[in-house]
Amino acid sequence: MQVGLIGLGKMGSNLGKNLIDNKHEVVAYDLNPEAVKEIEKYGAKGTNDLEKLIQSLEKPRVLWIMVPHHVVDSVLDNMKPLLEEGDIVIEAGNSHYKDSIRRYEDLKEIGVSFLDAGTSGGMEGARNGANYMVGGDRSAWEIVEPIFRDTAVENGYIFTEKAGGGHFLKMVHNGIEYGMMAAIGEGFEVLEKSEFDYDYEKVADVWNHGSVIRSWLMELTANAFSKDAKLDEIQGIMHSSGEGKWTLETALDLQTATPVIAMSLLMRYRSLEQDTFTGKVVAALRNEFGGHAVEKKN
Amino acid sequence: MQVGLIGLGKMGSNLGKNLIDNKHEVVAYDLNPEAVKEIEKYGAKGTNDLEKLIQSLEKPRVLWIMVPHHVVDSVLDNMKPLLEEGDIVIEAGNSHYKDSIRRYEDLKEIGVSFLDAGTSGGMEGARNGANYMVGGDRSAWEIVEPIFRDTAVENGYIFTEKAGGGHFLKMVHNGIEYGMMAAIGEGFEVLEKSEFDYDYEKVADVWNHGSVIRSWLMELTANAFSKDAKLDEIQGIMHSSGEGKWTLETALDLQTATPVIAMSLLMRYRSLEQDTFTGKVVAALRNEFGGHAVEKKN
Amino acid sequence: MQVGLIGLGKMGSNLGKNLIDNKHEVVAYDLNPEAVKEIEKYGAKGTNDLEKLIQSLEKPRVLWIMVPHHVVDSVLDNMKPLLEEGDIVIEAGNSHYKDSIRRYEDLKEIGVSFLDAGTSGGMEGARNGANYMVGGDRSAWEIVEPIFRDTAVENGYIFTEKAGGGHFLKMVHNGIEYGMMAAIGEGFEVLEKSEFDYDYEKVADVWNHGSVIRSWLMELTANAFSKDAKLDEIQGIMHSSGEGKWTLETALDLQTATPVIAMSLLMRYRSLEQDTFTGKVVAALRNEFGGHAVEKKN
Amino acid sequence: MQVGLIGLGKMGSNLGKNLIDNKHEVVAYDLNPEAVKEIEKYGAKGTNDLEKLIQSLEKPRVLWIMVPHHVVDSVLDNMKPLLEEGDIVIEAGNSHYKDSIRRYEDLKEIGVSFLDAGTSGGMEGARNGANYMVGGDRSAWEIVEPIFRDTAVENGYIFTEKAGGGHFLKMVHNGIEYGMMAAIGEGFEVLEKSEFDYDYEKVADVWNHGSVIRSWLMELTANAFSKDAKLDEIQGIMHSSGEGKWTLETALDLQTATPVIAMSLLMRYRSLEQDTFTGKVVAALRNEFGGHAVEKKN
Repeated sequence: MQVGLIGLGKMGSNLGKNLIDNKHEVVAYDLNPEAVKEIEKYGAKGTNDLEKLIQSLEKPRVLWIMVPHHVVDSVLDNMKPLLEEGDIVIEAGNSHYKDSIRRYEDLKEIGVSFLDAGTSGGMEGARNGANYMVGGDRSAWEIVEPIFRDTAVENGYIFTEKAGGGHFLKMVHNGIEYGMMAAIGEGFEVLEKSEFDYDYEKVADVWNHGSVIRSWLMELTANAFSKDAKLDEIQGIMHSSGEGKWTLETALDLQTATPVIAMSLLMRYRSLEQDTFTGKVVAALRNEFGGHAVEKKN
Repeated sequence: MQVGLIGLGKMGSNLGKNLIDNKHEVVAYDLNPEAVKEIEKYGAKGTNDLEKLIQSLEKPRVLWIMVPHHVVDSVLDNMKPLLEEGDIVIEAGNSHYKDSIRRYEDLKEIGVSFLDAGTSGGMEGARNGANYMVGGDRSAWEIVEPIFRDTAVENGYIFTEKAGGGHFLKMVHNGIEYGMMAAIGEGFEVLEKSEFDYDYEKVADVWNHGSVIRSWLMELTANAFSKDAKLDEIQGIMHSSGEGKWTLETALDLQTATPVIAMSLLMRYRSLEQDTFTGKVVAALRNEFGGHAVEKKN
Repeated sequence: MQVGLIGLGKMGSNLGKNLIDNKHEVVAYDLNPEAVKEIEKYGAKGTNDLEKLIQSLEKPRVLWIMVPHHVVDSVLDNMKPLLEEGDIVIEAGNSHYKDSIRRYEDLKEIGVSFLDAGTSGGMEGARNGANYMVGGDRSAWEIVEPIFRDTAVENGYIFTEKAGGGHFLKMVHNGIEYGMMAAIGEGFEVLEKSEFDYDYEKVADVWNHGSVIRSWLMELTANAFSKDAKLDEIQGIMHSSGEGKWTLETALDLQTATPVIAMSLLMRYRSLEQDTFTGKVVAALRNEFGGHAVEKKN
Repeated sequence: MQVGLIGLGKMGSNLGKNLIDNKHEVVAYDLNPEAVKEIEKYGAKGTNDLEKLIQSLEKPRVLWIMVPHHVVDSVLDNMKPLLEEGDIVIEAGNSHYKDSIRRYEDLKEIGVSFLDAGTSGGMEGARNGANYMVGGDRSAWEIVEPIFRDTAVENGYIFTEKAGGGHFLKMVHNGIEYGMMAAIGEGFEVLEKSEFDYDYEKVADVWNHGSVIRSWLMELTANAFSKDAKLDEIQGIMHSSGEGKWTLETALDLQTATPVIAMSLLMRYRSLEQDTFTGKVVAALRNEFGGHAVEKKN
């Protein structure tokens, strides 16, 4: 199938190669000429002109957008005047499901089908077998299912029948991911503080063979320890790209108690701080009522 | 290797068969004659007389205890007078690591080696390939390593060099397990409360193919939904058998912040209640200051 | 000072009487004729016609809105065409601070000053001495400060110089309130589950005399227990009116770790449920890997 | 009443003066000669010889122990041979209630009554009006109630009828205190991170006049900010002296969900760390699957 691929970042270029490996025809667009050149070498047609890209595609067009979520709207704004009834737009980044519903409604007005596709599995997955959670109209889905089937791992995709359903599922997936990662991290912190002197790579590796907590994340934990046995070289600063926050915000809107996901997110924020104002207030209060010493700044 | 197996419950009988499959000689003990009969059929010698069991074994004896953790001490009390220098006792249940250290010290006085072996992988693992985390003396370990190697999955065991190190690792493993399970549960609760109508078996199955959160627990989640699509038939009462509590208690002793593990445990306790006193107090307070209505008991 | 009071609910009617007690002239509006009649008896002029109310006031008008936060916009829409340059609108309900900033900007365009006033102290405070946190323009504040000073407890108000600053402060106040209430509730739950048989009214009363945790909330706790010694008659269902949620959402936007406020909110949501899907998933998983029994629905 | 006061630290010396102010006869013991001299100046008899102290008291003796909780047992060991049937020992430090029950049982064997007295209100309370929560035998209580009544604030003491009941109540009091302090701290952290520029002393002061969250802790918060407007000079390191931990441990034993108390404790532990191993693991995992950059150590 011919696919117009918009965005050749880490994920997009890996996906492009994955599509080509699976005999799909890729016409790729990015502003970065290096990225375009690279995918051309691999067998795609490339361009840095979005208008040309769209005009060159067979109709009905299949367009796959893989760009950072904060630029999706501007990309869509540029594309919209060039699209025609029957075209299918797949948006496979980490967008908020409410944005996806809005975009679906917006493109529906001009007869264009919008599919929201949450993508998991990391860069490695994009290259060799991703995981997809897709929402939108079944009629469009049936046309493009082959490109999902071919670039996913076996049984690694789901169509959810409803606009926004793909990105919602991806969002919750990431919420679970936050919780799982925090649980793993906390466990190793207990080990690290303990009287025992474990080989963490070996521990993670064993836990990944036959234990209840075997998982890809545990495999990656072993990988990480194999490179830096005590993670001495890195700081425990945990950035986040938004989906954990969205999950908690959604949970709040749905009045759902998700304490584990909440704590995994809040501890990420805590990790961004050297010191906290909460701590200052509590330390000052202990001093006020009990005369407990506070630790002065140097 | 000849193994004296003490305890033929769910885990013990599965392990016994696993040992026999791997050409080890099993002499098994349990008070339950049914359990003894069953393992005899499978090729073990069986007895309901602990003294006879111990006396019948070749020296140095290898004894594998697989009983509920609250009866380990009484089993050891009965065994101790019958043991001799050089014997090796493996305790493979869910004991607290501090009990294991105490038992190690206690048996050391009479020249008996005590190995604490945390076992993961569930009943299925015990039967076909378990996961072991073992602590104690290396000299004893080197003698019995073959029975661990043979009954574990490949690469599925670790020797930690220090008494208590096996059960400590198992304890933390279970703490991680609590957090992971809660994260998965919370994620599905967000799905359940959402505007979308997902097929949870399909979701769990897809998440187990290529996604970041693929894991044995996610596979089991798919299994559970395959039997009861919305889990309508069961109540969300989450019992616990102690290791999560031990992990949190240990974290407190080590002054380690483990909020995700803590919350996963506290929500299990919360699930045991129909109503909470906390809730009554808060509801009453809202009424006191704001005139907000309280919900009366019927 | 002449004050146009819009809204005669629990808070508004108490405030009206408080204003009258302090020699202010109240012209009051509500659609409910009973409420209007009651405040008229107490010495106010009353009306159920918003237009008449506004037209009857001396200029520059001082209008005090005390209505549920979800109707503030419609009240303002009705008022706006009737307002003139120099008028001052005080909005003293529980509005989101971002709405207050928007309303401030909106009214500024027609030369009307908008003050956002968070109000604490409950109904009793509104009647006999409230607590105010006010944001907006200083020029307007200086005109109306007397009505705040007179109806507040001594030292019980603050002007924060910036639009939205009053409601933001009130929001955070409520977040703290959520955490404090949960802490008190949890403490009493530990007492209730303990081997001791305390007289909770007496405990709360003693804790309110000289202890570190003495507070108005503890006084109210004693009041609540004085009416129902074990709170047997009420259910622990903890509703919420939004400010705790806003506090957490704001904390997330500011990447601030507020675990105590987060948990106090999530446990309110948890209290709305008889059972949880999280619990079902975790119970099912324990059954899957460990054969632990689940509790069936009746 | 004649009181043998053992321990003249911050709390003990303040209590001694409080007793003397209230016309009680104080015979005081401490190893520190300065402390003894100071209380002698105030009107007590003093000694640094425990045996002499006990022998000099009228029978039945009333002994009030106010020493750090980890030395209570050694003090009691020294005292026990000198005590006689009918003597009353009050232990007013921060002991674990289970230790108090054990001590009660132990002294009961020789006919000595042991009262466990939790003390709140800080140093200021010990000096001018404390708060007491007392457990033990009523017969002993009735003899010594006057010294509690006189040194407490009005209505500021409770007798709980059962050994351990005083220290249990004090423990839970401190658990609530942890939660309240954290809630206050988190609230101010949200303010600090916000777009507003509040005067925190003024905010705390206003919140303490008429608001729902008015409390002694809020008064102390205003005090703290009055000395250091933004707490710039202190670090947010939150030490703890054990009672919050005991409360959570007790809650776990009672299977009680106390998430707010739990989080307030865990965040204290978190504040003791510059960096966390949890954070390193999570950061490393994000790098493994998503190529997200980690922050390197300098």
